[in-house]
Parts: sequence; C-alpha cells; structure tokens
Amino acid sequence: MTSVAKPARAAGRSLDGPPPSRMKAWVLGAPGELRLAEKPVPVPGPAEVLVRVDAVAICGTDLEVIEHGEPALIEGGAPFNRNFTPGHEYMGTVAALGPGVDEFAPGDRVAVEIHAGCGRCERCREGMYTACLNYGMNYGDRDKGHRANGFTTDGGFAEYAVNHLNTLVHVPAGMSDAEATLIVTAGTAVYGLDVVGGLVAGQSVAVIGPGAIGLMVAAVAKALGARPVILVGTTRDASRLRTGLGLGADVAIDAQERDAVSEVLELTHGRGVHYSFECSGARDAINHALRMTSRGGRVCAVAFAKEPVAVDLARLVANNIYLYGIRGEGRSATRRAAALMAQNRFPAHLLHTHTFPFAELPAAIGCAGARVEDVIKVVVEP
Amino acid sequence: MTSVAKPARAAGRSLDGPPPSRMKAWVLGAPGELRLAEKPVPVPGPAEVLVRVDAVAICGTDLEVIEHGEPALIEGGAPFNRNFTPGHEYMGTVAALGPGVDEFAPGDRVAVEIHAGCGRCERCREGMYTACLNYGMNYGDRDKGHRANGFTTDGGFAEYAVNHLNTLVHVPAGMSDAEATLIVTAGTAVYGLDVVGGLVAGQSVAVIGPGAIGLMVAAVAKALGARPVILVGTTRDASRLRTGLGLGADVAIDAQERDAVSEVLELTHGRGVHYSFECSGARDAINHALRMTSRGGRVCAVAFAKEPVAVDLARLVANNIYLYGIRGEGRSATRRAAALMAQNRFPAHLLHTHTFPFAELPAAIGCAGARVEDVIKVVVEP
Amino acid sequence: MTSVAKPARAAGRSLDGPPPSRMKAWVLGAPGELRLAEKPVPVPGPAEVLVRVDAVAICGTDLEVIEHGEPALIEGGAPFNRNFTPGHEYMGTVAALGPGVDEFAPGDRVAVEIHAGCGRCERCREGMYTACLNYGMNYGDRDKGHRANGFTTDGGFAEYAVNHLNTLVHVPAGMSDAEATLIVTAGTAVYGLDVVGGLVAGQSVAVIGPGAIGLMVAAVAKALGARPVILVGTTRDASRLRTGLGLGADVAIDAQERDAVSEVLELTHGRGVHYSFECSGARDAINHALRMTSRGGRVCAVAFAKEPVAVDLARLVANNIYLYGIRGEGRSATRRAAALMAQNRFPAHLLHTHTFPFAELPAAIGCAGARVEDVIKVVVEP
Amino acid sequence: MTSVAKPARAAGRSLDGPPPSRMKAWVLGAPGELRLAEKPVPVPGPAEVLVRVDAVAICGTDLEVIEHGEPALIEGGAPFNRNFTPGHEYMGTVAALGPGVDEFAPGDRVAVEIHAGCGRCERCREGMYTACLNYGMNYGDRDKGHRANGFTTDGGFAEYAVNHLNTLVHVPAGMSDAEATLIVTAGTAVYGLDVVGGLVAGQSVAVIGPGAIGLMVAAVAKALGARPVILVGTTRDASRLRTGLGLGADVAIDAQERDAVSEVLELTHGRGVHYSFECSGARDAINHALRMTSRGGRVCAVAFAKEPVAVDLARLVANNIYLYGIRGEGRSATRRAAALMAQNRFPAHLLHTHTFPFAELPAAIGCAGARVEDVIKVVVEP
Repeated sequence: MTSVAKPARAAGRSLDGPPPSRMKAWVLGAPGELRLAEKPVPVPGPAEVLVRVDAVAICGTDLEVIEHGEPALIEGGAPFNRNFTPGHEYMGTVAALGPGVDEFAPGDRVAVEIHAGCGRCERCREGMYTACLNYGMNYGDRDKGHRANGFTTDGGFAEYAVNHLNTLVHVPAGMSDAEATLIVTAGTAVYGLDVVGGLVAGQSVAVIGPGAIGLMVAAVAKALGARPVILVGTTRDASRLRTGLGLGADVAIDAQERDAVSEVLELTHGRGVHYSFECSGARDAINHALRMTSRGGRVCAVAFAKEPVAVDLARLVANNIYLYGIRGEGRSATRRAAALMAQNRFPAHLLHTHTFPFAELPAAIGCAGARVEDVIKVVVEP
Repeated sequence: MTSVAKPARAAGRSLDGPPPSRMKAWVLGAPGELRLAEKPVPVPGPAEVLVRVDAVAICGTDLEVIEHGEPALIEGGAPFNRNFTPGHEYMGTVAALGPGVDEFAPGDRVAVEIHAGCGRCERCREGMYTACLNYGMNYGDRDKGHRANGFTTDGGFAEYAVNHLNTLVHVPAGMSDAEATLIVTAGTAVYGLDVVGGLVAGQSVAVIGPGAIGLMVAAVAKALGARPVILVGTTRDASRLRTGLGLGADVAIDAQERDAVSEVLELTHGRGVHYSFECSGARDAINHALRMTSRGGRVCAVAFAKEPVAVDLARLVANNIYLYGIRGEGRSATRRAAALMAQNRFPAHLLHTHTFPFAELPAAIGCAGARVEDVIKVVVEP
Repeated sequence: MTSVAKPARAAGRSLDGPPPSRMKAWVLGAPGELRLAEKPVPVPGPAEVLVRVDAVAICGTDLEVIEHGEPALIEGGAPFNRNFTPGHEYMGTVAALGPGVDEFAPGDRVAVEIHAGCGRCERCREGMYTACLNYGMNYGDRDKGHRANGFTTDGGFAEYAVNHLNTLVHVPAGMSDAEATLIVTAGTAVYGLDVVGGLVAGQSVAVIGPGAIGLMVAAVAKALGARPVILVGTTRDASRLRTGLGLGADVAIDAQERDAVSEVLELTHGRGVHYSFECSGARDAINHALRMTSRGGRVCAVAFAKEPVAVDLARLVANNIYLYGIRGEGRSATRRAAALMAQNRFPAHLLHTHTFPFAELPAAIGCAGARVEDVIKVVVEP
Repeated sequence: MTSVAKPARAAGRSLDGPPPSRMKAWVLGAPGELRLAEKPVPVPGPAEVLVRVDAVAICGTDLEVIEHGEPALIEGGAPFNRNFTPGHEYMGTVAALGPGVDEFAPGDRVAVEIHAGCGRCERCREGMYTACLNYGMNYGDRDKGHRANGFTTDGGFAEYAVNHLNTLVHVPAGMSDAEATLIVTAGTAVYGLDVVGGLVAGQSVAVIGPGAIGLMVAAVAKALGARPVILVGTTRDASRLRTGLGLGADVAIDAQERDAVSEVLELTHGRGVHYSFECSGARDAINHALRMTSRGGRVCAVAFAKEPVAVDLARLVANNIYLYGIRGEGRSATRRAAALMAQNRFPAHLLHTHTFPFAELPAAIGCAGARVEDVIKVVVEP
C-alpha cells in the first residue's frame, strides 16, 4: 500500500496536445472484480466535454458498484456491463469540447457532480434532475439523455471521461486537485441544507454520522452561521469527530459514551434542534434524529439505510416534522459548494487523508473500505 | 341508540338574549368516564369569543382523550383534569365577545379549528401555530396563551365554549350545522395538500385510509383538479370507498382484493403518483405510500401510527422523496376549506351519517367507535 | 372576411400516411409583410416531434412579430429572418417522431406551449425555462438548444411544425381543435397563479385587463376556489367583461364608469385583494393593481407595458408587496391547465369567437387586431 | 456637538435595583419639535418586558417621525400624539417582566426589532407580522395588540421602554452596547436576503445605496458566501463605499464616475446579478436595479422612494424578474442577524461612527441628518 502524504501534488497539470485515441481505464469484470484495461478515449457530443481525470476520490458507493456491478438501489439502470468504469468523485482538465460548447475551454480545471438529468421528464423540467424519471435510460434507442457517470455511464477511474456540461464546475484557482475532488461531497451538504430551508444562521443543526458527507454538512452549516452544530458519532469515529470539530462543529458527541438525544436536548434548552441530518445509515439513527428534532423541525435523510428500520411515525406526525430524502447534489448545489470552498469558508482539505497512484486503485479502494488509519477520504492521482 | 336521519335540523338557531351563567357540559372523570355536569359559562377574554355550541362531531381522537384523560401523543400538556370537557369539531353561534373583538358579532355562525398557538414562540412567529412550542402551556403562571380546545382547554361537548378568534371561521350561508362541523376536517385536508405543494391540477394523488380525513383529502384534491385521485381502503371500508367515489375519487381500491401498489403503478404508467397521503395509521401503510409514489414525489403522513413501523428509508433517499408529518390544520387552511365548501366544490355532507341529541353523547361516541352501520361522521346536536 | 360560427369543425382530423416533403407556410417578408410560401417539411431531431398543425390562434404578440420581424422585447434573438414563420398558439396531430421519442405516438392530438429552454443554463437547470439565459441561441454554432416556436424558431402558421417534446401536451379527448389552441393561454394563467403562491381557495383576486390572458386568469382563479374574483376593464371591454362573468368572475367592473380601486376595496372590507394580476398593459394599471392589493399581498405583472410608467414604489415597500413579472407559461403549467380544461372546470371555449381558414390568415390577423365584433380569440383552421 | 470616539463604553451597565416610577424621555411636540420630559416608567403586561435603554441609534425614519409626528407612509396609525417618544433602534437591559414571562430574566442584555404584529390578523397568522393588517391599532378599544415601538408605540429615546417579547433578542456576550443597536439593521439585511431566496453562496449580488441598510446587505451577503458583492453609490458616498469594502463588498462603484449598469454587467459576464437590492431611494435606482439583474433574477426594494418613478415594467415581465418590497425585519431575521454578529462574520462596528450622550439627542439627530464627517450610524448612550 503506497499511501503518501497529502497533498500529493500541487494544483494543475498542463495539457500536452490533443487527447490520445486510447486510454487506460479500470473496468468491472465479475462482481467484485476491477481490472485495468485499455479503452478508446470517448468523444464528447453536443453539450459535452472531454475531461482528463487528474484526481478521483473513493466513495462508499463505489464499493457497492464494484461489488454488485451496479448500485443496488438504482432502478431502471442499464444491464450489468462488464466493461463499465466506475468512479464519480473526480476532477480534471478540459481536454476537448463537444459541438456548440463555449461554456468551458480546453485547459480549464473542472470538478464534477454526478447527475445530468434527461432534461425531458417532468422532474428534470422542474429542476429536480437528481430524481430524473429516465434514470439509467442512456443506452441504444432507450437513450433519453440521462447521465450519472460512475453509476450508469462510464466514470472517473480512467484517464479520460466525458461529462455533460451541466455536471461540471470550475475549480477555484489555488485549490489542489485532491481538494477539488471534495467539491461534489460539499455539494451534497449544500443541497441538504438547501432542501431543509437554507437559512441556518443562528439555527441549531445535528448531524448523525461523521463520514465524509456528515462532516461536510457540519462544515457547511457552520459556514452559513448555524449554531450550535452538533456532530454525533461512535467511539470508533473518534478521529472523525475530532476532524469535525476542526471543520466547524461546535460539539462532538460519542453516542456510545453519552446519550446523544439527551445531550442534544440539553444543548437546545430541551427543544431539540431546528434541523437534523441522518448521514450514518445506522440502525435506529433516524429515530434518534426524530427525537433530537424540535417540534416543527426538519430532518434530512442522506444515508442509505441498509434495511427497513422501525420508525416512530407518530412522533413525526404529532410534531409536524418534515423528513426529506435527498439524492445526490441537486439544485446546482455543487456550484455553491465550490464558491464557499473558493472563499475558504471551511478547511475541506482536512477530509483528505490518503493518496494513491492511479495504478494502485484497488489498494486505494481497500484502504477506503477498511477504515483503518483514520481514513476519511482516499484520493487517487495519476 | 337514537340515530336519526340527517340533516337533523335546518341551519341556524337564533340567540335568545345574553348567555346564561351556568351550562351543561360533559366532563371527564376517571379514564374512560364521561359524565354530564354543570359548569359556569366561560367568559371570553381579549381576542376571545364565546360560542354557543350548535353541533359537534365525534372524532377518533375524542375517544383517545376520553380513554386516557388527555391525548397520548401530546407532550407538555396540562395534568389530567377530572373536570375537563373534550370535543373539538364543533360549530355554533357567537354569543358574546371579549374586549376589543370586532372581527365577529353576536349571532354570527362560526365553525372552529383546533389550534390557537401561543403567538410568542419561534414556530408561532413563523406561522406554524399547530407546532406551537408552548403546546399545553395554558394554566396558571405557565399560561403562554396556547389553546387547543378539546385537547388542552375545554372543548365543544358543552353548551358553550370560549374560542380564540384565530380558531373561528364564518359558516357559509345556507350550510347546515352538521355540515359545518366538517369544515375543520376539510381544513386538515387543505393543509395537507398545501404542505405538499398545493398545485395539484392534473397531478395524481393516492389516499390510503378512507376515514373522514382521507375522504376529505380525496374530495379536496379532486376539487383542485387532481387526476387521478385514487382512494385505497380495505374490504371493511366498502361503504366508505363508495362514499369516496361520490366525493370525487376517480378510483377506489380494496387493498384486500387487489394489490394496491401495483394498481396505483398501473394507473400512473408505472411511475407512481405525484402525492400520496397516509391517513389510515395501518401497519405498513407508509411503505405502501412510499412505493406508490413517484421518484421525486411527496408523501404526507396524517394518521398517527399506533406503533413504530419498519420503513424503507432507502427508497425515500434513493428517490428523493419528501415525507411530511402534519398536525391539525395549519396555515389558516380551515378558512380555505370553508370557502371551497361554500362554493359547493364537493358534497361534504356525504360524510355525515348519524345524528344524536346532546343528552345522548355517550351513545354517539359508542356509535362512532363501533364503526357499525356505515358510520363515517357522527354529529351531536342540542 | 370569412368568419364562421364556432366551432368550425369537430375534433380530430385523421392522419393520411407519412408527412409530405413540402408544405405551405406563411412567412415574414419585409416588416409588416406576411406571405404564403412553400417550405420543406421540417424533420424532427432527438427529443423532437413533427406536428401537423390543425388549428392556430392569433395572439397579440403575433402582430408585433409580424410588424417588427421579431418580438421587440426579446434580447439575443436571431437576426431578422425573411423566411421566418410566426404563430405560437397552435395544436395539431403528431405526424412523425424524432429518434428516441416514445413519449408521444403518431396520431396523438397535441397542444403546445412556447418555451423549450436550452436545458444547460443556470435558469433551465433550476426549472425556470421561460427565463432561459440562452434565449434565441438556436442557430448555427450558437445553437444551444433553446426553442421558442413562433418567436425564434418557426411556428404554427404553417402546415407542419417541429416541437421539442417538452413543449407538447396531450389534448384531452373530446376537446375541439379550436379550444385546444387555448390551452397555452390557460397555461399562462396557471403559471401566474402558481407564481403568486397557488393556494387561492377563498382568497380574493383582482384581474385588470379582460383580454384572453386576463379572462383565463379569472377563470382559473375561480376554478381553484378564489372568491371574489374581480375583473376590471373599460367601457370598450363591455362584451369581454360579460364573457368574464361567464368564465367565473364574481364581479366585473367598468373602470371608466366606476372607480375600480374603491370598488375593490369595498368588496374586500377595505383591505384589498390577496392577489392582483395586471394583464392590460395600460398606463397606470400597475398602480391600480398596487392600490387594490392588501398589505402583504402579491401582484403579478403579465402584460408588457408599452413604455415605462411611474410606479408608487413606496407603497410596494411600505406594504411588503411582492411584484412578480412572469413570462410565458413556466413550471409545466400548460399541463395543469390542460388537466383543468379536460375536467371542464371553466368554459374556455367562450374565448373563441372567430374562425378563419388557413388561406385567409391575414384576414384573421386583421380581425384579431381590429378588435371589432366582440373579438376575443380568432382561430385559424385548415 | 459632543461626538466622542467609539466605542463610548464597554458592554454592560449593571441594574441598580427595581425600576423607578418616573423617567426621562424625549417626546414629540409640534411637528419637528423634540423635547426632554418626564414620564411614568411603563409597566409590562402579559408577554411584555421592561427594558432599560442602554443605547439607541438614530435612523433616517426617526427624522421623518419627528418631522411629521408619525411616519408618513404608515396607514391606519394612531392620531398624532404630542407626548409620543420615538426611537426604534435601541438595546438595553431587562429591568422587569410582565406576567407569565420566563423567556427573559432581569439583567439580560437585549436588542430589539420593531414589529410585534397583532397575532390575530391573517398576515400575522401566516408569519408576515411586519405586514400586520392591524398596523397601528394599539389604542383604546381599538387595541388589537400591534406594537411598533418608535412608530406607533413609545420607543427608545427614553430611559425605559416596554417591549413585546417577540421583539427582543439576546445580545451576544462581548458585544458593545453601541454595536448591539445595529442588530436590527442587520436584521433587515437578513430579511431581504431571506425573501429573495436566501441561498446566495456563489451568487452575485448588487446593492444600490451604501446607507446603513445597504452596507449591512453587502456584509450579510458576503458572510453567506455571495460573490461578487457589488456596492453602488455616488461620489458623495466615497467614505461609505470604502466602509462597504471593509464590510465584505468585493467591488464598490461610484455611479457618478462610471456607468454602474455596464460595470455590473461586465462583472457578471454580461448576464447581470442574481439578486439586486435597492437601498437608496434615489430616482431611477429601481431601473438600474432591473437592468443590473439577470433574466430570472430577483430585485428587493428596501428604500422608500420619495415619489413615484417611471419603471421599465416590460423589462420585469420579459425577464421573469420578481420584485420584492420588504418592510422592516420579518421572519425573525433579527435573531439570525444577531447570531451572525455573535460569530463575528462581519465587522458591523464599522457602521458606528459617532456617539452622543442622552442629553444631547437633538445634536445626535442633527449629526445623523447632516451627513457630515463621514457619518454612518450615530448612537446615543446614557
């Protein structure tokens, strides 16, 4: 395992002429299998851009995609494709433009978000493109234009990837490649805060689950003036809870040592927080979130719970609580996230703990999955 | 049991001079006990009105209040009061005004809604008065001004009741007393449709549970142009499902005979409805609602589930579904409900199936609880 | 002038085989000039549909397009094109499908809305496609995908037109071709009511200007339960005001005979309406709207005022009034409008007063422009 | 003129026993006349608190109140009262509590906001308490409960004032008395940003008029991550524009030297800003705001224009722009403003330029009105 100190490299690798015709890419084989292959460099169509991948982070759902061949929870997806390239948290350099594209120029540094909706279904037309009704409809004569790179279309575990321009955001000047891979994670946090109402200055926020997304929610909430921001984890999360304090959380609670619900109620004069975020997927976490939340408050469910859990719905009804499931990073939240990061509103780089070279992607994935050595975000760079 | 044909009486009983000083009222004794007593006629304070009760409907939660002494789900309520008068779905005639009240005049026919918030907590100040943070704080030096007649302050199982003027709405001319007791029920339906977004013309709506509130949701959704409106019940609900069709539902499904989820998907081209309402409190109904609902759709939970149920949260997250718990009838929805009823947009009177005289209130309650004889709404009139 | 009784023809002209290669189309020449020409039948691309035009209504902005060569108010439009075909309120029959389209089938009767946004700008991505930032960018290597048929891309004064599928809605069964041309007008009304908040049951609405859009706003507001709906016009509008009463307005005011502001205040207990709509473009109408509107109320400006007018902004600020300019028919409002019309919630056909054959389009336009003979909507049918 | 260096005094003057029965207060005489008088110390009623005034800032509308006897733009106000005490931007120490109040304790340092709605009108009930329909109804048997201290009820140019608890917010520890008087000003800024949508990270904002409110809008917008924040003033505003840069504006434009509209368009790639705020009241400023704003953007009008101005409504309609008039500081924005200031998100104290003793209030008002010596906010302290 070749984990190196971060940041691995200063920002910005220059372009060396036009893109080649062939590239190296990691592809799925049998479930669980990931192997290095050679593929043609894809050609961007209208409204698309070719991106040379300069860094890609590993996300928990990558592990699921690799294990299952496609994300377990996505319906209507293309049939399992043995040549599929996963990877969805990447950034890079614009290498070529599709016809009619002038929103980006070759050489621009860009980070991605995941979802390009079809643009023609009811949801896309109302701006809910992460809930596109044509999710996965991207093949053959069923191609409705939906793209979710790394999920249903080829992603960033490769030298190049094609992106719809809606899924690109300029990387702020001076930001390292590794940090730029975290923009999409911050985008999910901004989206969640947006969905619950957005105006969190002086409002209390609880975040259950100090994974990358939970930590980002805490960081963004604090950047927008929330107070107190309370982060809840377990004993095993000790290091992550410390990182959360560095990112802006006012309080970090080890829920194995103390009763998190009581603690949150005490911190909020017995009323509970205005907003809570369930980012752990842990059994019963949603009920903790409901009990931590004030009458008339709002809960945002970000994590995919592995199985149905008994939920105290009567509490939801009696207290007029709204529970928002969110997927991905809608409402162009990624752009707002990048803007906050460009202004150094929180030290996102603290999330980046490990770096691997491209050739050692399987080791990087192993590292991310093992949760050893205080791993939060593992980044792969060429 | 003295059930009579409806409507029991034409609208409008005139006032006979000023209110008396004593009145008859049903009061709680030991849990489960309800007895007829004599009480002083209450005196309206500032911003309050004395209402002579002309009709009161029985609601399922009345049964719980009587059984438990106070609603099981309300926190922070006053201690159980053996002299408490329940009843919250009433209408009547303004009999006297508190100081400074000119919004109503003696003789006005009025219907009620339940919640008068304290007006001084954070939720009230943002308009969420049914989620008042001072719920139940209405006694002694803890009187913060909150009122929920029939729950925490004396209600309508009496000859007179005092109401904060915020909880009153004028009864439309020509509407019978019995029908006017249903305004508050329609108010909950309007509130639910409001919370999920309100613009339902041409949108699909599923309603699980054809009780009084579920039927009203179907009726109001159709009145606002929703299509299709799908009502889901059980074999035992056969008569209620028929009433639902009369109120405006396009389709009624007996979920014991057919698979309701499949049926709804078929009616919506495989996508699910835009909005679903869980009004049954039945085990697993919330999961049916989630599975009936389109990606990016919204679910409103109105019924109090008796116990926690295993909920498929991953579906909520993966599909960007929002789940709204609502309590009561906020956002002045009762006024909009009355306006729709005044314009005869749906035959609300179909919900009123039985009438009892005031002296036979326990029989009326028995009738409502027994669910015999195609009972939907039982109304008590003096 | 060959004006005939309406409806000119029962619904539904069947398709006779595949579309021809050439068609007749009215095209712009010099400003003010419209002549009949022959053009190739356009070919639908991805996400597009070829529509055989079965009926097209004349709108006031058509006259401006013809006069100026392109709408005076649209920025960034393509250069004036002497071969351009105007016409944007049409309906017809699907004649052919572009690649990958299965949302419609040949033979389907469809009505249109105007705006297909580019799908790639910030506004489109948030669902505000009528405010597309690439408005008019639809030519050569500047083709960003925006379409506004009849404004920046060829419209419906022709035998065939190509539409992005986002701009099509199914025509309800049993609706005449002529009435179906009014769906887009009703769509603007629904959009306006949506933008001001949408929940208008029991709320008061004033509409200034009983043109086609104003009348539709009154009709839709009433269909959604608004009360009172007050329509304001001038003596010259006498016939339109009568039509407004038929469409659902509760009161019609001739503002030359009576003081409209006083009248509205009187009808609303001195407070003013909850919502007002300025649909006249008349000088000072916006100030009347502001003075008719309650503190905390909302005003929607739909009409293009011909020149800047002195506005009492202090009234707007002191009364916390929001003023919404709306363009076109966003938020898929046209689909909801069609749903209301399919359910016969208002007699839209009353707006249709005159019918002309396709060959006499200039006469139809003259008739619409002259405002003689109680003209409201003039429809042209092949 | 006794202007002294700021801050005049460290935070926190302790309470010396119970409040006295008499106090000194500045009162209105004839229009334009303000004289020092003695009055009874008012007694707090239910939901009210007695505040010992420790500092009060001068606002432009104070000058109007003094000139006219009451604010020119407020309708329905009480008759001019020769004993009325103006002053609405104050802070102080809780000196006594009304019955049932436990939300505050004697000795608490508090700042105020202006509007306590009646709590019983339609607007208050929906949370729009600054647009209370019973504005000014606070006297005799017309007392509906509305309070606007310094406008319709006695204000802060006195030793003590009574406040409804809804109008109080705790002063953050460590904040000087003078700075705390600015919380209400920041509250207006937060309210404006809230009304236009609130999520301004990475969005562009233009502010016309670098008065106290305009400067606060720039400061809060930047604190929430807006970029660029563009402040527009005149040559006379040179010093204020410099202060604006210190508060967080990215660019300050002297509109007499450069064309502000062109400049803003250039800074925003020709599109205009997402949000603009008209805080100047200057002739034509609203049109500048409209022309600076992107298609689909939003404009907030905060300043009271002295007379009607010709507005380019066609631009508003053609570009789907929403124009929000806001009054005061609704939606509990003052609390969120205090929270941002407590976290030092912007240097609000820069606005405070002059301090006067209580006895020299007329001189303070003269200083504020004269706009000499780079005056922004003048604060009076006992």
